[in-house]
Amino acid sequence: MTDVLDLVIRGGTVVTTDGTVRCDVGIRDGVITDLGASLGPAREVLDAVGRLVLPGGVDAHCHIDQVSSTGLVTADDFHSGGVSAACGGTTTIIPFAAQHRGQSLVQVVRDYAAKAAPKAFIDYAFHLIVSDPTPTVLHDELPQLIREGHPSLKVYLTYDRLRLTDDQVLQVLRVARREGAVTLFHAEHHEAIAWHIARLLDAGKTGPRWHAQARPESAEREATARACFLAETTGAPILIVHVSAGSPLDEIRRARRRGVHVLAETCPQYLVFTRDDLDKPGFEGAKWMFSPPARDAAAHAALWEGLADGTFDIFSSDHAPYRYDDPQGKKAHGEDAPFTKVPNGVPSLELRLPFLFSEGVKRGRLSLERFVALTSTNPARIYGLFPRKGAIAVGADADLALWDPEREVTVTHELLHDRMDYTPFEGMRLTGWPVTTVSRGEVVWHEGTVRGAPGRGRLLTRSPAAVDQ
Amino acid sequence: MTDVLDLVIRGGTVVTTDGTVRCDVGIRDGVITDLGASLGPAREVLDAVGRLVLPGGVDAHCHIDQVSSTGLVTADDFHSGGVSAACGGTTTIIPFAAQHRGQSLVQVVRDYAAKAAPKAFIDYAFHLIVSDPTPTVLHDELPQLIREGHPSLKVYLTYDRLRLTDDQVLQVLRVARREGAVTLFHAEHHEAIAWHIARLLDAGKTGPRWHAQARPESAEREATARACFLAETTGAPILIVHVSAGSPLDEIRRARRRGVHVLAETCPQYLVFTRDDLDKPGFEGAKWMFSPPARDAAAHAALWEGLADGTFDIFSSDHAPYRYDDPQGKKAHGEDAPFTKVPNGVPSLELRLPFLFSEGVKRGRLSLERFVALTSTNPARIYGLFPRKGAIAVGADADLALWDPEREVTVTHELLHDRMDYTPFEGMRLTGWPVTTVSRGEVVWHEGTVRGAPGRGRLLTRSPAAVDQ
Amino acid sequence: MTDVLDLVIRGGTVVTTDGTVRCDVGIRDGVITDLGASLGPAREVLDAVGRLVLPGGVDAHCHIDQVSSTGLVTADDFHSGGVSAACGGTTTIIPFAAQHRGQSLVQVVRDYAAKAAPKAFIDYAFHLIVSDPTPTVLHDELPQLIREGHPSLKVYLTYDRLRLTDDQVLQVLRVARREGAVTLFHAEHHEAIAWHIARLLDAGKTGPRWHAQARPESAEREATARACFLAETTGAPILIVHVSAGSPLDEIRRARRRGVHVLAETCPQYLVFTRDDLDKPGFEGAKWMFSPPARDAAAHAALWEGLADGTFDIFSSDHAPYRYDDPQGKKAHGEDAPFTKVPNGVPSLELRLPFLFSEGVKRGRLSLERFVALTSTNPARIYGLFPRKGAIAVGADADLALWDPEREVTVTHELLHDRMDYTPFEGMRLTGWPVTTVSRGEVVWHEGTVRGAPGRGRLLTRSPAAVDQ
Amino acid sequence: MTDVLDLVIRGGTVVTTDGTVRCDVGIRDGVITDLGASLGPAREVLDAVGRLVLPGGVDAHCHIDQVSSTGLVTADDFHSGGVSAACGGTTTIIPFAAQHRGQSLVQVVRDYAAKAAPKAFIDYAFHLIVSDPTPTVLHDELPQLIREGHPSLKVYLTYDRLRLTDDQVLQVLRVARREGAVTLFHAEHHEAIAWHIARLLDAGKTGPRWHAQARPESAEREATARACFLAETTGAPILIVHVSAGSPLDEIRRARRRGVHVLAETCPQYLVFTRDDLDKPGFEGAKWMFSPPARDAAAHAALWEGLADGTFDIFSSDHAPYRYDDPQGKKAHGEDAPFTKVPNGVPSLELRLPFLFSEGVKRGRLSLERFVALTSTNPARIYGLFPRKGAIAVGADADLALWDPEREVTVTHELLHDRMDYTPFEGMRLTGWPVTTVSRGEVVWHEGTVRGAPGRGRLLTRSPAAVDQ
Repeated sequence: MTDVLDLVIRGGTVVTTDGTVRCDVGIRDGVITDLGASLGPAREVLDAVGRLVLPGGVDAHCHIDQVSSTGLVTADDFHSGGVSAACGGTTTIIPFAAQHRGQSLVQVVRDYAAKAAPKAFIDYAFHLIVSDPTPTVLHDELPQLIREGHPSLKVYLTYDRLRLTDDQVLQVLRVARREGAVTLFHAEHHEAIAWHIARLLDAGKTGPRWHAQARPESAEREATARACFLAETTGAPILIVHVSAGSPLDEIRRARRRGVHVLAETCPQYLVFTRDDLDKPGFEGAKWMFSPPARDAAAHAALWEGLADGTFDIFSSDHAPYRYDDPQGKKAHGEDAPFTKVPNGVPSLELRLPFLFSEGVKRGRLSLERFVALTSTNPARIYGLFPRKGAIAVGADADLALWDPEREVTVTHELLHDRMDYTPFEGMRLTGWPVTTVSRGEVVWHEGTVRGAPGRGRLLTRSPAAVDQ
Repeated sequence: MTDVLDLVIRGGTVVTTDGTVRCDVGIRDGVITDLGASLGPAREVLDAVGRLVLPGGVDAHCHIDQVSSTGLVTADDFHSGGVSAACGGTTTIIPFAAQHRGQSLVQVVRDYAAKAAPKAFIDYAFHLIVSDPTPTVLHDELPQLIREGHPSLKVYLTYDRLRLTDDQVLQVLRVARREGAVTLFHAEHHEAIAWHIARLLDAGKTGPRWHAQARPESAEREATARACFLAETTGAPILIVHVSAGSPLDEIRRARRRGVHVLAETCPQYLVFTRDDLDKPGFEGAKWMFSPPARDAAAHAALWEGLADGTFDIFSSDHAPYRYDDPQGKKAHGEDAPFTKVPNGVPSLELRLPFLFSEGVKRGRLSLERFVALTSTNPARIYGLFPRKGAIAVGADADLALWDPEREVTVTHELLHDRMDYTPFEGMRLTGWPVTTVSRGEVVWHEGTVRGAPGRGRLLTRSPAAVDQ
Repeated sequence: MTDVLDLVIRGGTVVTTDGTVRCDVGIRDGVITDLGASLGPAREVLDAVGRLVLPGGVDAHCHIDQVSSTGLVTADDFHSGGVSAACGGTTTIIPFAAQHRGQSLVQVVRDYAAKAAPKAFIDYAFHLIVSDPTPTVLHDELPQLIREGHPSLKVYLTYDRLRLTDDQVLQVLRVARREGAVTLFHAEHHEAIAWHIARLLDAGKTGPRWHAQARPESAEREATARACFLAETTGAPILIVHVSAGSPLDEIRRARRRGVHVLAETCPQYLVFTRDDLDKPGFEGAKWMFSPPARDAAAHAALWEGLADGTFDIFSSDHAPYRYDDPQGKKAHGEDAPFTKVPNGVPSLELRLPFLFSEGVKRGRLSLERFVALTSTNPARIYGLFPRKGAIAVGADADLALWDPEREVTVTHELLHDRMDYTPFEGMRLTGWPVTTVSRGEVVWHEGTVRGAPGRGRLLTRSPAAVDQ
Repeated sequence: MTDVLDLVIRGGTVVTTDGTVRCDVGIRDGVITDLGASLGPAREVLDAVGRLVLPGGVDAHCHIDQVSSTGLVTADDFHSGGVSAACGGTTTIIPFAAQHRGQSLVQVVRDYAAKAAPKAFIDYAFHLIVSDPTPTVLHDELPQLIREGHPSLKVYLTYDRLRLTDDQVLQVLRVARREGAVTLFHAEHHEAIAWHIARLLDAGKTGPRWHAQARPESAEREATARACFLAETTGAPILIVHVSAGSPLDEIRRARRRGVHVLAETCPQYLVFTRDDLDKPGFEGAKWMFSPPARDAAAHAALWEGLADGTFDIFSSDHAPYRYDDPQGKKAHGEDAPFTKVPNGVPSLELRLPFLFSEGVKRGRLSLERFVALTSTNPARIYGLFPRKGAIAVGADADLALWDPEREVTVTHELLHDRMDYTPFEGMRLTGWPVTTVSRGEVVWHEGTVRGAPGRGRLLTRSPAAVDQ
């Protein structure tokens, strides 16, 4: 108590999943050491009166410097992505180390870590995408990587070059369960989608607008139910990413009632866009092309209900930045390419927290506590980072977002810090914005200024997944 | 930071709904002022190494010094009840100020407060039982009392001298909604129960065992659904107390899906006893007579599921102490009286936390965080006491329970501090026990010793109910 | 086989719930005696080539010469009502003998029978409306009347002068079960409706349009669930009349899954009108005022689904003819009367079968077999008239409707044979129409001509209700 | 009417799905020509006083003279199978023409027809098992066969040599929909079963008792849901065969609520046996080995409910006769073979109607009308044989079963007419038995005597499937 603190956040309203408290936050060596009524002395004091002090966001679903199976690379690397995240109040990201078939998973992780290390702006970890579960991967690489601190995998039930068969999924889940990892699912029924695509292309329906028709809600519902069944068969915990509508969400509820350990995630784009956004003149609809596609107003209502009532555990961005006017982006195959050739994904890394705060908390749909749980505490907990990340508590990393709950912002692409050439949220009016972001005790974003060097972010070693609700 | 603290709880594991943190708790003037790695100096230090430091329990459903409609008085007053609660880790109780027909509700509250003040051992508040919603009560007394800090009412859908008609309930809910109060429901269908009772008594079926048959689960399910409908009609938030089984719980889930604000509570006796416990030789079954009655093993499973998955908001005792061998108790009308004449209720104030910790947390059914939410944080929040109560946070009242998670205890009536002459939990083996209880910074229970004078407990003024989940 | 038949229906397509068969129908002494490939000889032959031969309709819900609790009398008596029914293909009606409080139920039935006998055009029976279940009614009159062949009662959960308390309903159901009667329920939650009405009138919202808001779907859903619970408590079979929407229908499905004997009915007006029809200029909306009110397109869809999938057992008219421009009708209290003063009901006796055939069978929503089941066989079966009525089988009464499935008709009030001054179905285009109606072997309607004298219809003595599905 | 009839069934109670009628049945040239009160004259008169006259049973799921993918042949051919069926009141069978991979489907049907023609004792048709949907099969053979009168296919989602991928199923369904055929599904999740089998065999769990554990209810539930999804995707009607428990049945109900055309079947063995029957000493359990396996008492209850409430459309035998002590039967690989090597199936062709009559109708679970619908009228209707089969109506084939509803029989293998060496129903006491069976006007079974020559049965040409409910 006699030592001088490095930094005190003074007079803010500290928000955790447990409620709000008006108190100071004391930081030393990058870690929170004290919460108290009037802490001091300190080398630096940040005035937080009138601000919310939030645990820094944890974005558990984003694609950074990722190479797709067709060779395209996402527009953001670990520097631009990390800066964009930090400017939006996020202090930890968990992108993917994506195996392509034929590759060693250990090598894939090593390569992604090597790419990330010199550039990383904030702390990060990797989910392991498993697209080729060879005996070596199953018996050696996966157990080794999980034990080394990567306790989360992702599997795809669709996409020709990524999808696993149900049998392969069972093999992966068996290892995941034994080793204490959680498995993320992209859940859409592959064959039904292929069937719809064949019929659409046969009929000359090739523009972006047909993307939604090719991937109906029923295909997501079925695959979600099947993923839950595979989890039930093996006893392994799973998480369904980017749930887009009410009917797959209901499958998750039903599975939980049977005792299946299944968690759920949704993303900003599913709460505000609809399939009609694909239906713009020319190729413009490609800017709203992602999978599963956005649905309709009924889906928005069901997702908001799931966010409020606790069905959803995590709110992520699924930031998948493909520039519009770029041969590495949406136009990789030209404007006349059929919708099946357009890379899927939208950017939303920086807007994730502002969007949910404005549309959720400000509009009375979510409590502040749910907001913090969905954007920070729950992903930290589930993916083995809690209480180091996701908490404002003695001993936690000093990762904080100071929030001005009244600031009004109109979204423009210029405002953002990613490397995209558009944002699908252009023109949206939001209330509430992060004015300061603290990463391990360092102020990295403050009132419009980015501070900190590439490479300051660290690769996080994680504990086993914590999936019990 | 330069002032000396009154008390430091040193080295314990602090548990909140947000997780667990190893840190010290600093207290001054009865309030938590600091959470930190190594707090001090302090006038007194409690060694909490190896202990869990929990927010003191809030028992939101107990009958203390309450006069029944037939003139019986419960066995515990505000001193014995408060001591018993404190010895079980509970630091706040919310018993009832019970209006009988013809009485002024304001006077009732005044009378209960006068009874409580000289005896109260821990802090307390009152729910208002409304059995006679006259125009004066509706237009004057209820609004006044709610505004004065009593934002919770209770209504009965059964019992001849307490029950309101649906129309009266609508009138009460209208006021409650406008004034910001939550309304508790005892939900059983009165006429169906009367119908069953008439048939049983006609058939000479008068012993305790017939109590369960007279009050079937369907009667509770129907009344729960109807209460939800009345809430839906008026927009008022409600809470269903002592849910006994899966089917009424499912009605609550269904209502929530329609947007009804309905909360749910259950109690220890519904998780361990069954209707077979009523079926003991002679009059013995009267010791397990409460309403709604205990059901069966399937009900236990459904209730545990509801506790774990968040359907239940609150875990209370429904402590209703009627001594067995006492003319003010179970034998008020003798051992040959029909079951309809036996006062309903069991004692469970002191065992509430130990029971749920042992059967819930220790058996892996509940996380520590859910345990704290159900027994302390949620009732504080819902009934307008948070964050003063129910929290371990800077600025909160220093109400704490220090828990030995490994202590093994066999329950006997002698062990307990209430004024009863039996416990239905006799012989049950529990793991985990409160070793120290702190109330507003004062140690009131420590390793077998009670400290503190009658009257030290204070009547709490409450904020409006917080019922949004 | 050597005797000459009275009448042969030659060459038609006979439709029953079992399918369609091309065969002749032979009739002697008012009864079907033969079904065969080429029957004869006969005194009279009706050419039915190209016609469907249907069992004559049984309309189990209509108000004929009924005196309301406020003294209004419905516009149709047993002659005009019977003629109108027959012209629409219906050969049996089951209107109500309606007890008002203070009346003897036996006397009520005697009075209605005396009114009916000289006028009845087709066969008829009475449901007993019980509004005053005195001990005499419960112990003497009801058992006597049921045993004499009136095995169906109706109770109301709403309307001040008709409604029974839950306790009274339990008493009635107990008698009904013991004596083998089915009890019909008008299911709306009385107090909630009163609550809404009070609020609407307080706000000066008095026109017909507010009728729908005063009686929301939730009030019907709750009362339906409660009626099912009362049936469950007593073990008595019940039938919910005029179900208006999906949510009450779902309550019926849920109750059945618990083993409750509950049947369901809907009516034409719920399948085509919406609450918007009440919202016409001036007092015009009164023409669409009935209770429960029409809902919306989603309700239409849910009801059609219930008709098709077998959830509904009966399709009735709920013919309640109050003339628009008549002091005994909609304008009983003038055009400025609040909506609560306008008599409820619409005429639909004659259009019931044409409506369901056109909108159901012709549009592919229902099979012919379901059509016959809903309009004739099921009501006959449930109300104890089968196989005398509702069947085309050897031994059944020769009650038949010969149907031209291709005839196109535009509905106008002039076309109909009731005593109303409007039809809410004005201008509707229907395909399919009854060209001939046979009642106990007599042709009473043929290609635009009515034949037969008042008083030819007979009061039917019924068997106990057949409610097992 | 002047011609003499060939046969009159005199004085029986005729049962159809529409109810019961006491009348004579007149037959000429193998067809029902008259239903009447006292028909005649006739060359032959059968006294049916005190008998029920039922439409002859249609067994839509049986394996007759079928070659399995491992080369085993079922014990019954078209003569023994037909005789056994007829002695049990069944007059039509629909076994399978089973394609093995590499075979021409047209040739398969030709071969099965050639095997059947000289032996058939009663009328028959074939479902087409599609295990190899080559382009030729999809584009040429299937359309041709459906148009020639075989409008029903069967696909398997499990078994290595039979199963189709989801993609193949979609191709088949597309053709089936276009051509008007219904597709039957054996629904179990292949990979999960393989997963369980691998784990069981690894653990040395090889006896018959492990069969049930290898094929859990969840695997059937998942595959049923997936089959419904594939039907939904293509718009094709499907039928789930041999549903074994409540949870797959609920999936069917859910799909119907979404508008999917899905029908359901169950069989006697699922209503009386449980997984415990597999758990007999030594190899004895093999006598109860079939797939999906029998479940438990809760499943029995759910299935009876589904039979009673109309969820099930068809009640079939799934007669799959493999003798116990026979190298072509259960012991094909010896008594020590792992459970995966034992041929699956039990005999139940002859007991199907007596079982359902006794356990269903006599015990009050089913009405006579449901009994007739499930065993005769519905399968005839769905598979395109109605009203030629499945009806007692003018113009229908004179296929009838005269039933003694009071005859008490104790089942023994000696009593039956199949070629098996055991019956799993040995010792069961049944009430009700077919005393006479009439096939196209000929008495083929009468009071213990079989009449009629091999080859008298005819291959039926069928209409398109009728799947709308």
